[in-house]
Amino acid sequence: MLEPDEWEFWATWMRAQQLLAQELDRGLQRDCAISKAEFSVLMTLYRAQGDDMRVSDLVDALDWEKSRVSHQLTRMENRGLVTQTESGASGRRTRVGLTTEGRTVAQSAILVHGANIRRHFLDPLTPDQAATIRAWSEQLVGRLEPRHDT
Amino acid sequence: MLEPDEWEFWATWMRAQQLLAQELDRGLQRDCAISKAEFSVLMTLYRAQGDDMRVSDLVDALDWEKSRVSHQLTRMENRGLVTQTESGASGRRTRVGLTTEGRTVAQSAILVHGANIRRHFLDPLTPDQAATIRAWSEQLVGRLEPRHDT
Repeated sequence: MLEPDEWEFWATWMRAQQLLAQELDRGLQRDCAISKAEFSVLMTLYRAQGDDMRVSDLVDALDWEKSRVSHQLTRMENRGLVTQTESGASGRRTRVGLTTEGRTVAQSAILVHGANIRRHFLDPLTPDQAATIRAWSEQLVGRLEPRHDT
Repeated sequence: MLEPDEWEFWATWMRAQQLLAQELDRGLQRDCAISKAEFSVLMTLYRAQGDDMRVSDLVDALDWEKSRVSHQLTRMENRGLVTQTESGASGRRTRVGLTTEGRTVAQSAILVHGANIRRHFLDPLTPDQAATIRAWSEQLVGRLEPRHDT
């Protein structure tokens, strides 16, 4: 059983993360007019090798339900950010890529998001705080990250 | 623009949070057979004053869409965890409370969740790391928490 002070520590830490995430989402919405979901799709496509990727690979990369990805891509296609192309005998649209507009928005979103991460996360940390938080993060990832080699 | 090392710090920190959240969710699923959403509902009702609360207050407390709360409550009522009661002339069920079973599951979930927070978050922290992370969390909440008094 946790002590009241330990629950308070945990609750404050959770609240800090939530507020930071909300602030970063608001920044993308305000300065780039994109949602968190749109940002995730844009970043995945932007980092992909080549001009487009298979929709099924996008589903894997995002780790979302297939139907959610499909609806998201339809909305983003209507906004002119992505383009889906047919491929294969079935005529189903199985590949997706960024439009020129989508690429421009992705580049601008990286700048905006980076500046907000600096402003709200990196800048307020002292070097000691940064080193501590980084070491803790690395330990935790090392301990909990699923091993793909077993 | 962030430097590659700064992006890596940010990505590791985000990944650590995600892995921790997943591990805690899995603990609730494995040991209490409840989802994260069910846990949120159980905790809100458990901490409420009195035996039940207005569904509209639950919607506010959870900060979910009204329809999502409604569907969640129907599923939890079918599992015997909550009970919804009619109130008012319209005959709509406007109040919700925990059943005896729901209260038992909530108490067990608090113990399981607390033990997993201790195991995966508190215990691996040195006192210095804990103090640093707590101070950072409090600073961030102080800076970003919306003020209700203005």
